[in-house]
Amino acid sequence: MGQLEEARKGNITPEMEIVASQEDCDAEYIRANIAEGTIVIPFNTNRSATGVCGVGKGLKTKVNANIGTSADHIDVEEEIKKLKAAENAGADAVMDLSTGGNLREVRKRIVKESRVTLGSVPIYEAVVTANSNKRSISEITTDDLINAVKTHCEDGIDFLTIHCGITLDLLKLIKERPRICGVVSRGGSFLVEWMSKHKQENPYYEKFDEILSIMKENDVALSLGDGMRPGALSDAFDGIQVHELNVLAELADRARAQNVQVFIEGPGHVPINQIQAQIQLQKELCKGAPFYVLGPLVTDVAPGYDHITSAIGGALAASYGADFLCYVTPTEHLSLPKVEHVKEGVIAARIAAHAADLAKGIKSAWKWDNDMSRLRRKRDWAGQLATCIDPERAKSLRESCMPQNEEVCSMCADLCVFKTADDA
Amino acid sequence: MGQLEEARKGNITPEMEIVASQEDCDAEYIRANIAEGTIVIPFNTNRSATGVCGVGKGLKTKVNANIGTSADHIDVEEEIKKLKAAENAGADAVMDLSTGGNLREVRKRIVKESRVTLGSVPIYEAVVTANSNKRSISEITTDDLINAVKTHCEDGIDFLTIHCGITLDLLKLIKERPRICGVVSRGGSFLVEWMSKHKQENPYYEKFDEILSIMKENDVALSLGDGMRPGALSDAFDGIQVHELNVLAELADRARAQNVQVFIEGPGHVPINQIQAQIQLQKELCKGAPFYVLGPLVTDVAPGYDHITSAIGGALAASYGADFLCYVTPTEHLSLPKVEHVKEGVIAARIAAHAADLAKGIKSAWKWDNDMSRLRRKRDWAGQLATCIDPERAKSLRESCMPQNEEVCSMCADLCVFKTADDA
Repeated sequence: MGQLEEARKGNITPEMEIVASQEDCDAEYIRANIAEGTIVIPFNTNRSATGVCGVGKGLKTKVNANIGTSADHIDVEEEIKKLKAAENAGADAVMDLSTGGNLREVRKRIVKESRVTLGSVPIYEAVVTANSNKRSISEITTDDLINAVKTHCEDGIDFLTIHCGITLDLLKLIKERPRICGVVSRGGSFLVEWMSKHKQENPYYEKFDEILSIMKENDVALSLGDGMRPGALSDAFDGIQVHELNVLAELADRARAQNVQVFIEGPGHVPINQIQAQIQLQKELCKGAPFYVLGPLVTDVAPGYDHITSAIGGALAASYGADFLCYVTPTEHLSLPKVEHVKEGVIAARIAAHAADLAKGIKSAWKWDNDMSRLRRKRDWAGQLATCIDPERAKSLRESCMPQNEEVCSMCADLCVFKTADDA
Repeated sequence: MGQLEEARKGNITPEMEIVASQEDCDAEYIRANIAEGTIVIPFNTNRSATGVCGVGKGLKTKVNANIGTSADHIDVEEEIKKLKAAENAGADAVMDLSTGGNLREVRKRIVKESRVTLGSVPIYEAVVTANSNKRSISEITTDDLINAVKTHCEDGIDFLTIHCGITLDLLKLIKERPRICGVVSRGGSFLVEWMSKHKQENPYYEKFDEILSIMKENDVALSLGDGMRPGALSDAFDGIQVHELNVLAELADRARAQNVQVFIEGPGHVPINQIQAQIQLQKELCKGAPFYVLGPLVTDVAPGYDHITSAIGGALAASYGADFLCYVTPTEHLSLPKVEHVKEGVIAARIAAHAADLAKGIKSAWKWDNDMSRLRRKRDWAGQLATCIDPERAKSLRESCMPQNEEVCSMCADLCVFKTADDA
């Protein structure tokens, strides 16, 4: 039995206990919300990892980091370094989005090395395998697509993103309603191509019950992918995006009915003044299913700084109720990230998540800020450096221009407001 | 006659024309709002600078960068480099907050070299001058405080931050109501010390009419400083902060009555879920006076990343109606910023301002995003690099991991969604 089935039977699993202790709440609260579908613990029964986390209602906002090879850069050891950088920077989950080299080998290394929750997108493997056999996307079979899901479940991945909501109806809408950037989800774009060529329904939609029974086998959580997420601010909240969300809501119901834990992926590029409505609509349609957002990026014009554009959108989204933030690195829209960009991306997303947790009234979040502010007031520099989100970077910036008097900093020197108050 | 007096007489000045053309609106709109006190053009009649900008209702959100020496680091040439870095990164205004060395010499160099609107905080000069003459803060006279204002006006500064709202009533409140971080405004902390020692009213409050007549001389705009801004999330929106804001609102009325253009400074450290209320209260109390916010920083725990914590808060504040964002650099709370931190801070604040301008519905902001997204869709890499907010950084990140096929980027290589769509 998986987490959802156990919860519905009134049983508290060891994973629910772990999450309750991480969140400083009652295990019964976790159980009841898992039963309702408002909390998810993605935990593959084939994985003996130490890392477990809960995502959803009343819990701390979680952060995911995407890593993985591409055809242009295949270096498994570097991906393991990115995994470790993400974990050390405090990511709660990592997705292996590899599309270059031997994908299964990369995945198995990541599963072996990881201490955190793991996700992946099986369709990438179906497409990359086809490509390497000189077959086009349209030559991929339904079995290829379903087998990729099976393999990822067997390999110990905790949650899979599958773009089940792209239907033939949606394809019509895509043709009728112009967008600046069209389809920007990789998985989404493969399915759209496959379906257009075959004039056939999305296998992940048509064989949804089969997918659910495969996932149930190892209690893998389903992340319902938003293949139609807007890739430009002008494309946000259009009929295409909303149609898919509506389908995802229906599929989420079917997943829960089969005791498969489910959460919903969200946008994307979204202007600030639309974020609240986006979150409210998702929560309402999907009956409180946890919401996993990529960003949202609040402007299209800042490649090089999309960790910042997405921290703005992510903080806002989470403060309105999004539960899980997918990080964005500074190299988004430009190149595959390096190890240092993974760290920058995780820290920016953690800042967004934490700022939202303060807005959500999470007690441990407030304790952290108050502890930090008390140390600041006391001019306890060692304490501040030990308590802040990135001690290494804070120390290096403090040392970039040291004060003569180590009780203060070089910004104000002896005119430090706290020194002024203490001296008076 | 200054901008406000001219506006009230129905006259459109050359500066109103310049601002109207920058904002792509009617000069009459600018005039009418200046007359209402909802737009300010800070422009000292003693300065023959090329840079003019408008701040307020319906205009693009503006960005200010603070530069200046401290006793721990006095290097005028480096400050000029910071000025140029801020201008090149797109700052609309720069404040000289120097507190180290010969302040007037630094200021005159900055006035001479600057192409943008300039601000300063005259009380720093009164305090630094006293310190260098071995006099304590309490030995500063009312004349010293007022003369500092005079000097800054004569030197060509466009707007002065003066903490006129700190009154003896407020001092009582400070003693009665505990805060974690107390007073964190430098100017505020000096005045609190002076007033506590003398048990006397704040000279900037008591001599407010004299201050106004000095500022009117060169049409210098008054930035009413928020000496009581919260320096910790837990201190935000307390009775101390709100009391001062109420006094500032009354002083803003008096300034406008004397034809002195005025805007209001705001917090500070503020949790996300309080930002909207903070902006609404300020706008309501102060009859739509432009709002100049420092951040707000949405968490206390991220020194090293306060350009991000403040970009989150700033974007949100501006989307709710704040008009002018004071940047925060990555070295905030740690050290005096270096030239590269000034650039990082300005870009982060510009991202916040621009994201808010999209939410505000500013047409030129939407054109920029749509242009960028169209270039992205076309995989026009030269166009994207030329159009984005920081071409230099975007180019360097793209080149950090170049694709084999230059039509795509190394993140997705040939699986690029736009290539998939174009090939199909």
